[in-house]
Amino acid sequence: MVDELVRLDAQACARAILQGDITASDLVSACLAHIDEREGAVEAWQHLERDVVDRQLSVLDTMTTDTRGPLHGVPVGIKDIYDTFDMPTAYGSEIYAGNRPPWDAAAVARLRAAGAVILGKTVTTEFAYWKAGKTRNPHDTTRTPGGSSSGSAAAVADFMVPLAIGSQTVASTVRPASYCGVVGFKPSYGRISLTGVKSLASSLDTAGVFARTVSDAALIASIMAGRSDWTAAASSPDALTVRVARTPDWDEVTADAMTAFEMTVSLLRSAGADVSDTDAPGRFKPLSTVQNTILAFEAAREFSSEWLHHRARLSPEISELIEEGNAITPEQFEDAVTARRGASEAIEELFAGADVLLAPSTLGEAPLIEEGTGNPLMSRAWTLLGLPSISLPCGKGPAGMPLGLQIAARPGRDGELISDAKWIEARLA
Amino acid sequence: MVDELVRLDAQACARAILQGDITASDLVSACLAHIDEREGAVEAWQHLERDVVDRQLSVLDTMTTDTRGPLHGVPVGIKDIYDTFDMPTAYGSEIYAGNRPPWDAAAVARLRAAGAVILGKTVTTEFAYWKAGKTRNPHDTTRTPGGSSSGSAAAVADFMVPLAIGSQTVASTVRPASYCGVVGFKPSYGRISLTGVKSLASSLDTAGVFARTVSDAALIASIMAGRSDWTAAASSPDALTVRVARTPDWDEVTADAMTAFEMTVSLLRSAGADVSDTDAPGRFKPLSTVQNTILAFEAAREFSSEWLHHRARLSPEISELIEEGNAITPEQFEDAVTARRGASEAIEELFAGADVLLAPSTLGEAPLIEEGTGNPLMSRAWTLLGLPSISLPCGKGPAGMPLGLQIAARPGRDGELISDAKWIEARLA
Repeated sequence: MVDELVRLDAQACARAILQGDITASDLVSACLAHIDEREGAVEAWQHLERDVVDRQLSVLDTMTTDTRGPLHGVPVGIKDIYDTFDMPTAYGSEIYAGNRPPWDAAAVARLRAAGAVILGKTVTTEFAYWKAGKTRNPHDTTRTPGGSSSGSAAAVADFMVPLAIGSQTVASTVRPASYCGVVGFKPSYGRISLTGVKSLASSLDTAGVFARTVSDAALIASIMAGRSDWTAAASSPDALTVRVARTPDWDEVTADAMTAFEMTVSLLRSAGADVSDTDAPGRFKPLSTVQNTILAFEAAREFSSEWLHHRARLSPEISELIEEGNAITPEQFEDAVTARRGASEAIEELFAGADVLLAPSTLGEAPLIEEGTGNPLMSRAWTLLGLPSISLPCGKGPAGMPLGLQIAARPGRDGELISDAKWIEARLA
Repeated sequence: MVDELVRLDAQACARAILQGDITASDLVSACLAHIDEREGAVEAWQHLERDVVDRQLSVLDTMTTDTRGPLHGVPVGIKDIYDTFDMPTAYGSEIYAGNRPPWDAAAVARLRAAGAVILGKTVTTEFAYWKAGKTRNPHDTTRTPGGSSSGSAAAVADFMVPLAIGSQTVASTVRPASYCGVVGFKPSYGRISLTGVKSLASSLDTAGVFARTVSDAALIASIMAGRSDWTAAASSPDALTVRVARTPDWDEVTADAMTAFEMTVSLLRSAGADVSDTDAPGRFKPLSTVQNTILAFEAAREFSSEWLHHRARLSPEISELIEEGNAITPEQFEDAVTARRGASEAIEELFAGADVLLAPSTLGEAPLIEEGTGNPLMSRAWTLLGLPSISLPCGKGPAGMPLGLQIAARPGRDGELISDAKWIEARLA
């Protein structure tokens, strides 16, 4: 029974509860029992408190069928950079251990209003940057789940919850989704409120979600964003045009990951997609460097309070980022902003009439834990431009670990991205 | 002695302390004595606590001359939407009365690191929106100081502090600066970190500052932003080209305010500025409406936690904004985002080769308290486009209340705006 329930996707869970086949409490108990069994190996959770969950269930139990939301009774994991009024929020840093925010992050409140059970807080790297937390990849616990949304990706991959939320400033949704073999969705920049979420670099920070299907990912993101237009059906096959726009970053992709990617592209072409494959226009080639300049400059400013009051308790990783940012001149920052704006204004050159771009989600399989949380290179430019992107599980690497296919659309075209990703997901199945 | 000290500008204060003519404690005591005398009439302060200020002074006293920052000992007022680790922060709402943040807002930490004395928290409207706080205009206490940065503008105008910080999502720096007869500076969108500042609408929210000279405003903003390029000298007169680009919004400006504005333009022209005066291009005319659509849609999302947990404690003003935002469709929002992007990409059409744009800061003088915090119309479009802008005191209206001149530059050209504003300030003196 536990095994059966925890493997349901979110919408199947919601339907089963709505129809009275199971109660929210049954589902939560199944998830908690599964977590009890697996948490020792995976360590996806920063905070889990049965009493707080039971209080939520009591409130949900008082609701009549017609006042229930679309996620009524569905457990969700929350990355521990999102504030929660009923659980501590520490942002992956010892500085804030035991911190009790006076509110929910806006996106968390939207999930509660939709009936979701906020099951617990998932492990994040320190301030959503490089310093890894305790979480291990459920497919091979000697390997990283990726970061920074490590616990959320691992929890969904390991069937601890059907849904979890994370964020992306560089590649923090796409990379862990790919390494853990689940669906990750990062909407267009600015569409989900980050009120009550700790900032790493404000012009790059974006909410992200994890699920085991595109449809589930779209549903939870649409609730967080208040968007009725993100839950459309799959595209029709004859409508899909795809562009593979290579940059110098692609030279870093491992041979195995490139082979898997090329096979996927061939498969989509045979399935009817119109695929064009060329070099990215020149102005898009240096964008990974531009992204890093903006990241470091902004991060050095976002963490001014921690730098002033708690410097000794920051990791070497985040301290180096802040020092790097403090060494960037205003002119270098403005040049980076100008380069981003130029590329954004010329976005049609990149898409060249296609609906979506495709790329490998990462350079390859999840590295060993001791090597860190993996290289974010393949998402830097797309995050910089605020493109909505989805990572789909897509094949395995030489060590048997998951690989991912990254799909992106123009900013604001999240609904179309979701429809196209549903079509691609069905072809990959 | 009190009168003399409190009338010094911030840089004169810093110099006097550095030279040993006065101590930081002398200056703070003078400010507090003046506040004691005037606060009953003006009510600019939400929180003032002598012990907390004394603790800051003790730390500053331990510093040697070569470790002191550029604002060493200078008192600053902080709008109560900025978190402070040593003072409560309530965001103008009873919901958060007594709230104790675990950090300083990033911009506040930068001020502390520069040696500023965080004197206290100034009154904000509820969540930096329309519902007025208790503050009155120091020039006539039957009139509004403007909002939402009401206490900060009034405190600087009334010589309670030489510097204060605020924010602007619609017109919340320019309008109160104009009504209170002080300098207000809202930098380009995204250049000062808003980490630890309560959000109203994230793609519009911008930090702002108040001072009694452009030079002081530029100095405090440059410290908050970590910018060495915002403190340049005044432009040379022959270099200044100015554009007066009228939109339909200008029909709302009162006759007296328009007369004062036209006189100022004539004065600048005679002083050597190259002024062109035409209608704004068509795409810029509907931007006030576009701004309001984005404001309402985003605000409805930012306040999801308060809407879920504390709805009955929100004012009618903010509740109406949230309901308005919830009624905006995703398509209407994306159309507004597209209209903003189109205008941003065509920004050269608006500037038409000029360095800066000029407009009246507000529709007229500060209204009576019972009429609210005044109309923000004249800043909506420029805030929407992320333009840096400065309001300079410029003449008086029929009731003898201050009027303001609003100057704006292209996004990212804050340094040039400051230089040009210094030149204009000197002409107006």
